[in-house]
Amino acid sequence: MNIQIINGPNLNLLGLREPGIYGAESFEHFLSALRGRFPLHTLQYFQSNVEGDIINALHATLENNIAGIILNAGAYTHTSIAIADAVAAIGIPVIEVHISNVMAREDFRHVSYIAPKCIGAITGLGLEGYALAAQYLIARSEPEAAQKVGN
Amino acid sequence: MNIQIINGPNLNLLGLREPGIYGAESFEHFLSALRGRFPLHTLQYFQSNVEGDIINALHATLENNIAGIILNAGAYTHTSIAIADAVAAIGIPVIEVHISNVMAREDFRHVSYIAPKCIGAITGLGLEGYALAAQYLIARSEPEAAQKVGN
Amino acid sequence: MNIQIINGPNLNLLGLREPGIYGAESFEHFLSALRGRFPLHTLQYFQSNVEGDIINALHATLENNIAGIILNAGAYTHTSIAIADAVAAIGIPVIEVHISNVMAREDFRHVSYIAPKCIGAITGLGLEGYALAAQYLIARSEPEAAQKVGN
Amino acid sequence: MNIQIINGPNLNLLGLREPGIYGAESFEHFLSALRGRFPLHTLQYFQSNVEGDIINALHATLENNIAGIILNAGAYTHTSIAIADAVAAIGIPVIEVHISNVMAREDFRHVSYIAPKCIGAITGLGLEGYALAAQYLIARSEPEAAQKVGN
Amino acid sequence: MNIQIINGPNLNLLGLREPGIYGAESFEHFLSALRGRFPLHTLQYFQSNVEGDIINALHATLENNIAGIILNAGAYTHTSIAIADAVAAIGIPVIEVHISNVMAREDFRHVSYIAPKCIGAITGLGLEGYALAAQYLIARSEPEAAQKVGN
Amino acid sequence: MNIQIINGPNLNLLGLREPGIYGAESFEHFLSALRGRFPLHTLQYFQSNVEGDIINALHATLENNIAGIILNAGAYTHTSIAIADAVAAIGIPVIEVHISNVMAREDFRHVSYIAPKCIGAITGLGLEGYALAAQYLIARSEPEAAQKVGN
Amino acid sequence: MNIQIINGPNLNLLGLREPGIYGAESFEHFLSALRGRFPLHTLQYFQSNVEGDIINALHATLENNIAGIILNAGAYTHTSIAIADAVAAIGIPVIEVHISNVMAREDFRHVSYIAPKCIGAITGLGLEGYALAAQYLIARSEPEAAQKVGN
Amino acid sequence: MNIQIINGPNLNLLGLREPGIYGAESFEHFLSALRGRFPLHTLQYFQSNVEGDIINALHATLENNIAGIILNAGAYTHTSIAIADAVAAIGIPVIEVHISNVMAREDFRHVSYIAPKCIGAITGLGLEGYALAAQYLIARSEPEAAQKVGN
Amino acid sequence: MNIQIINGPNLNLLGLREPGIYGAESFEHFLSALRGRFPLHTLQYFQSNVEGDIINALHATLENNIAGIILNAGAYTHTSIAIADAVAAIGIPVIEVHISNVMAREDFRHVSYIAPKCIGAITGLGLEGYALAAQYLIARSEPEAAQKVGN
Amino acid sequence: MNIQIINGPNLNLLGLREPGIYGAESFEHFLSALRGRFPLHTLQYFQSNVEGDIINALHATLENNIAGIILNAGAYTHTSIAIADAVAAIGIPVIEVHISNVMAREDFRHVSYIAPKCIGAITGLGLEGYALAAQYLIARSEPEAAQKVGN
Amino acid sequence: MNIQIINGPNLNLLGLREPGIYGAESFEHFLSALRGRFPLHTLQYFQSNVEGDIINALHATLENNIAGIILNAGAYTHTSIAIADAVAAIGIPVIEVHISNVMAREDFRHVSYIAPKCIGAITGLGLEGYALAAQYLIARSEPEAAQKVGN
Amino acid sequence: MNIQIINGPNLNLLGLREPGIYGAESFEHFLSALRGRFPLHTLQYFQSNVEGDIINALHATLENNIAGIILNAGAYTHTSIAIADAVAAIGIPVIEVHISNVMAREDFRHVSYIAPKCIGAITGLGLEGYALAAQYLIARSEPEAAQKVGN
Repeated sequence: MNIQIINGPNLNLLGLREPGIYGAESFEHFLSALRGRFPLHTLQYFQSNVEGDIINALHATLENNIAGIILNAGAYTHTSIAIADAVAAIGIPVIEVHISNVMAREDFRHVSYIAPKCIGAITGLGLEGYALAAQYLIARSEPEAAQKVGN
Repeated sequence: MNIQIINGPNLNLLGLREPGIYGAESFEHFLSALRGRFPLHTLQYFQSNVEGDIINALHATLENNIAGIILNAGAYTHTSIAIADAVAAIGIPVIEVHISNVMAREDFRHVSYIAPKCIGAITGLGLEGYALAAQYLIARSEPEAAQKVGN
Repeated sequence: MNIQIINGPNLNLLGLREPGIYGAESFEHFLSALRGRFPLHTLQYFQSNVEGDIINALHATLENNIAGIILNAGAYTHTSIAIADAVAAIGIPVIEVHISNVMAREDFRHVSYIAPKCIGAITGLGLEGYALAAQYLIARSEPEAAQKVGN
Repeated sequence: MNIQIINGPNLNLLGLREPGIYGAESFEHFLSALRGRFPLHTLQYFQSNVEGDIINALHATLENNIAGIILNAGAYTHTSIAIADAVAAIGIPVIEVHISNVMAREDFRHVSYIAPKCIGAITGLGLEGYALAAQYLIARSEPEAAQKVGN
Repeated sequence: MNIQIINGPNLNLLGLREPGIYGAESFEHFLSALRGRFPLHTLQYFQSNVEGDIINALHATLENNIAGIILNAGAYTHTSIAIADAVAAIGIPVIEVHISNVMAREDFRHVSYIAPKCIGAITGLGLEGYALAAQYLIARSEPEAAQKVGN
Repeated sequence: MNIQIINGPNLNLLGLREPGIYGAESFEHFLSALRGRFPLHTLQYFQSNVEGDIINALHATLENNIAGIILNAGAYTHTSIAIADAVAAIGIPVIEVHISNVMAREDFRHVSYIAPKCIGAITGLGLEGYALAAQYLIARSEPEAAQKVGN
Repeated sequence: MNIQIINGPNLNLLGLREPGIYGAESFEHFLSALRGRFPLHTLQYFQSNVEGDIINALHATLENNIAGIILNAGAYTHTSIAIADAVAAIGIPVIEVHISNVMAREDFRHVSYIAPKCIGAITGLGLEGYALAAQYLIARSEPEAAQKVGN
Repeated sequence: MNIQIINGPNLNLLGLREPGIYGAESFEHFLSALRGRFPLHTLQYFQSNVEGDIINALHATLENNIAGIILNAGAYTHTSIAIADAVAAIGIPVIEVHISNVMAREDFRHVSYIAPKCIGAITGLGLEGYALAAQYLIARSEPEAAQKVGN
Repeated sequence: MNIQIINGPNLNLLGLREPGIYGAESFEHFLSALRGRFPLHTLQYFQSNVEGDIINALHATLENNIAGIILNAGAYTHTSIAIADAVAAIGIPVIEVHISNVMAREDFRHVSYIAPKCIGAITGLGLEGYALAAQYLIARSEPEAAQKVGN
Repeated sequence: MNIQIINGPNLNLLGLREPGIYGAESFEHFLSALRGRFPLHTLQYFQSNVEGDIINALHATLENNIAGIILNAGAYTHTSIAIADAVAAIGIPVIEVHISNVMAREDFRHVSYIAPKCIGAITGLGLEGYALAAQYLIARSEPEAAQKVGN
Repeated sequence: MNIQIINGPNLNLLGLREPGIYGAESFEHFLSALRGRFPLHTLQYFQSNVEGDIINALHATLENNIAGIILNAGAYTHTSIAIADAVAAIGIPVIEVHISNVMAREDFRHVSYIAPKCIGAITGLGLEGYALAAQYLIARSEPEAAQKVGN
Repeated sequence: MNIQIINGPNLNLLGLREPGIYGAESFEHFLSALRGRFPLHTLQYFQSNVEGDIINALHATLENNIAGIILNAGAYTHTSIAIADAVAAIGIPVIEVHISNVMAREDFRHVSYIAPKCIGAITGLGLEGYALAAQYLIARSEPEAAQKVGN
């Protein structure tokens, strides 16, 4: 299964800046481990600080055989109707992920134009939120696999 | 590890009513399977339609050796400062779960008094949200176990 | 036909307190007369000051062969999404009744979470509102009977 | 007893348009049956799409020996302070009626300038709402008659 | 000098209804006395409950040699952009008059779409407000006459 | 094809007043030229300052074989739910036209109750907006004709 | 009759600054002429830029045999609950006067805390508003004198 | 004198949790000392996390010879119209107490539905607020006793 | 212990005006009795209608060995950020007192800029609120004395 | 005449996605036909999902001899002050076009930062809106050509 | 050049209180150094906690040959329309200065009635903001001097 | 010292467009002079209309030995949480500059997401604002240099 991870603005600084909010691990480092945990699947990665390039990346999934998208649009989550429209247009399941608990931060971070167009969201669980989202997307397409989760 | 699942108002009707929104499986049926997926852990369950009894159940975790809580406060999510205060008071990690994507429903469901007091939230991923929350709580207390997730 | 009347908080004080707003007759006294006016039908009655118990009572109608519900949720009308969800979930016709004209009172009484889930509402017509609601529910299930109303 | 029914804008299209919302029966047809149900009383009828003419009709009740008014001001309900002032000025009991459940429709239909000036309201019960209102007005002036309602 | 007085909805009931708010004198009676106080000027009078007819009356002043207008648009003051547009369009000085102190009544009476298009307003001074407005309009066109006011 | 043009309040003053906003041409003069540009079609015209008469005119199209409506409701655009309801009820395609760019004027002109009930709107293009609307309505019913537009 | 005129902040600059809004005449010059127009009455004058001193001046009228007050509180009109409380406390009739048409200026000038405590207001009629207010206060205490107004 | 103290949700955790906000003393410990300070009076105590039980407790004061109530409704203060209605209904003097300075906390804690129905409130003075409230209620019923306060 | 009592605008009229709201006793009379009740402490008093003078008085406490302040800022409570800043700046404990129950009055009295900067507030308990505040300030500095309160 | 068409985010998906809202024709296909309808004029086309590139394209018209612009900024319409500033800065006539009736969709689509800077707008008339806009821009620069429109 | 510096409420405490927000230097000390840095110019200084006295000081600049004003109105910035009117009235260039970054503090500090009447503002740069403002005012009147700034 | 100047959307048109608002000088011309005024320091310059590129430029300062940033984000100031996040993340002092007095323009320009993350702002002082900001940044790092400012 091909899963596209898309990260939005400032997430390229992950691990470098504001570790109190976002943790001390870079996304690249985390991604490497994450791929190791899902060896049967392909996890593609794209990051951009440009709103329109995130839209382009969402559009590109239509031609790249992507079966599910994990989207952390960063601060564009709260302001971008255009990204939300792209999510609605492509018709591929998208899960919104936020590393921090956005509902515990400023009021303007409580608004998400994107959430209503996604199938769901995972927030506040750190980088592990990406793993849970990947696991869910895979389980969703292979229901029997879902039974394997647990211990 | 002891995990307390607390469900709020109307969730006792799960599987009986409005399957278009909440699915056709009763929570009891799901819970039985869920316990099977986490045989090394204890998943306690409580449901009530009474706001105050949910607060009581949250308080009771202090005396029941509970290490993590999965809370779906149903409609009280959007109106109860008292439950939010209880979450803040007990100091045990709580993950907010919603079966449906509340951000895609009525405006009054976009408000959560409880979210800022939780460590995070999983919404819109159906009953599987409870499984992901349990998995996260376990992984959080046993970091090395987190590496096992995936395929 | 079985009709369930459910009264919410403080309505147990009816006739005892604030007669200027709610009248001087206790609900029990009125109910007795009301039953006399509908001898062919069963009017069940429940009152509670506990929000969750009202939800429980709404759920219980699913197992009690209730064909219609008259609901005066009192002040919970204006604050309870949970009761509104219960009304939506059970799928039995509910008529909202208020003794006083709530639209002529404080602004916060102009909001009703419950109204959109009911089939309609009767407000400001005193206790007679319950009688009109009962009559409507009966007529609705026995259309020909509706013709008998009048003089 | 003389009762004046006043219908506002677009209600002349009743039965012709949007039966999904308002039903398939014309008001004239309903009125004829309604008069048959209240043979001892006079039910006068007026309809206009002009806000000011509705005010004029309300004023005219002062000179026409009207003892009660059933007012469905249609969309003017939500915008007309002038009709509300007329209701307040004439001092004759007015019951607000709406065929559809306005609280389940657009937000701007949740506002009623007229409601606070009426003694009460019946909404969402279809054309039968007019019958219930007439019955209440009659019972209110002849309390003993109220006892006859029921079966 | 020709002055046009225009009264809006419900002002035809003046003296008949709600004397506590509007006083006990009919406008016709007051108008007769008012004309006696301004024998050198013509005071034309128009009243309607129809918003559009008030607009028509404002337009008609363009052809009737009217030099000033006293407008009490009643409740339309608070809702009618169309009357405000008419005031702006005709280019004749208009003074807004209200008999009662609208700022001491309901919040929705604090809004006036018309006021910004008028040269000024006199509110709360009862029927005498019309006299003061007439006097001002006359004085404004005959500045020397203004000197005569006083005692 | 029969097209009904309906103009609302103050548009009878077009060309006489406020040419800076609305231009210097009367609507009658423009209409005459417009009819010359669409010789194969009938352009009926109605103007009123009375909200209810505009509703009446919309209703009348049901009996007058009208295939499309061009509606400039003037200031009633921003306040009349009743006209919007009439547009929704009649089921004939309506295009909203405004001569001036209402979005560049006062905030209260940015609200249109009518727009959501129309198929579309043309604003700010002066009287030519009526011509474009007529052309569109014709092209819509005769798709092949649409190809002829251009140069 | 003793009338107290109280002017608030920046009105000491009248005639010196912003003649486009407030006119070119100083208040002292106007006051001198005004006193000449009311020779049988005493017009006392107080101006201050200090909110508290205006309150003091209002209190002082209780000891100075003042029968009516003309209050132009300037910008404090829109912000001072304290002055409004003083007006309410002293129980002497107060008329609010504004030289310019405040309803045609910034939104924050549309709010008046003071207006609900006054008997009425005259706005937008320039300095002549003070004369009209004085005349009204006198006529109010000497009803027969009111008949003398006019020409 | 019988005084009823009613504490709302989460106040049973007092002294156990969040001492930074609420202090380190349990309410029971404080209550014991408080009773020692008012040996001539009876201080009854009730705590519940259930909104409806607080209403029941308020109703019960009608039958328990209670002369005054000290109510700390906790988070229900900010959401419960039903408790406020109960306070209004029973007609016994109620003083609202809050241990912390709610006005210095989140915005949603600045709203109190209950306050307008109480005679007054004491906030931010810690547990001592209960003592001051008790003292006031006693002094209010025994005015001469009030003189004894002080040193 | 030195306690400074500061009263704001219009409180100099206490006992003279609006006894229905504020009672019939002058503050000076009350103050004399209050001093008698606290003979071991000094109660200094300042009243002004000028916002800035209240700020000056708050600043002056820094040089006057004041250990606690009782502040009733009157209507400035609801509008003065400057007084609130002064309270925050001086670092001496301040208790906000209001004679009437401000939460039961107009909406604009529900806002207090000052409250968040104080340690707490006593409202609605009449002049006795000053006594309770004084008692609390003393007890706070002499904890053992607090034990003496009661009967 | 050179006309620049600028399309914003997601409009590159036209015809591929959500045909229920936007129709089934790609813009390129439509554009080809459109150019055929205006053979005497040049219709340049630019599309981007990047807000800043749309601004760049607007700036570039200053150097490309463009006489008119047709701008469908897509979702940026509702969020981009920067594009609105660009429209205002370049001083070339711009017509805003929307394919769907944005006023009948979500509330956040009712806001247009761009509209006040354009000369007008055409919404809801599908792709034909571009043709009408082009026709208008041409007619505007060649008034006599406008006479040719019609049939 | 004569420059008037005006400081508003609580700024007399500068250096004494809340050094975390405002720094530890008194304004007098800073002013002395500031004068040394601008030996060719006169820097007059005025501070008051009284809103009206700040207005008086602004008025006084008209008679004192002041060419520019540096105004830090403190908390009155956010509440005083009267000071804003004074700034507008005097017609002398005013620069608003704030020591702290008001946009990073409470929401009510984000509003400035005064800013729109000033030519500009310098905020958050500490006391140095006064120096920059003075330098700008001087450079503005002596453009060639501006060239000297830098290093 | 290395200072990075970053200009946002439309500022590349400076001097070409809307000189009434922004002045007639191009930024490049100004920059050249500015560099001459600070010969000991490096002023790097970047302008983009693309929000994401501005974020990239802010990130790049981390690797370019930049000690201070002058940021005029143009219209993105009012809409971009993403740029604000970038400012917060990089931890280099940023001063917000606006050429025009944004507080005197449209309401939507009064909001700045960026301001709370900067150390301060200079607005309305034209291009000179950049010079003052540069001077401040230099003085801040070389306190003794600050003494040299003045004349």
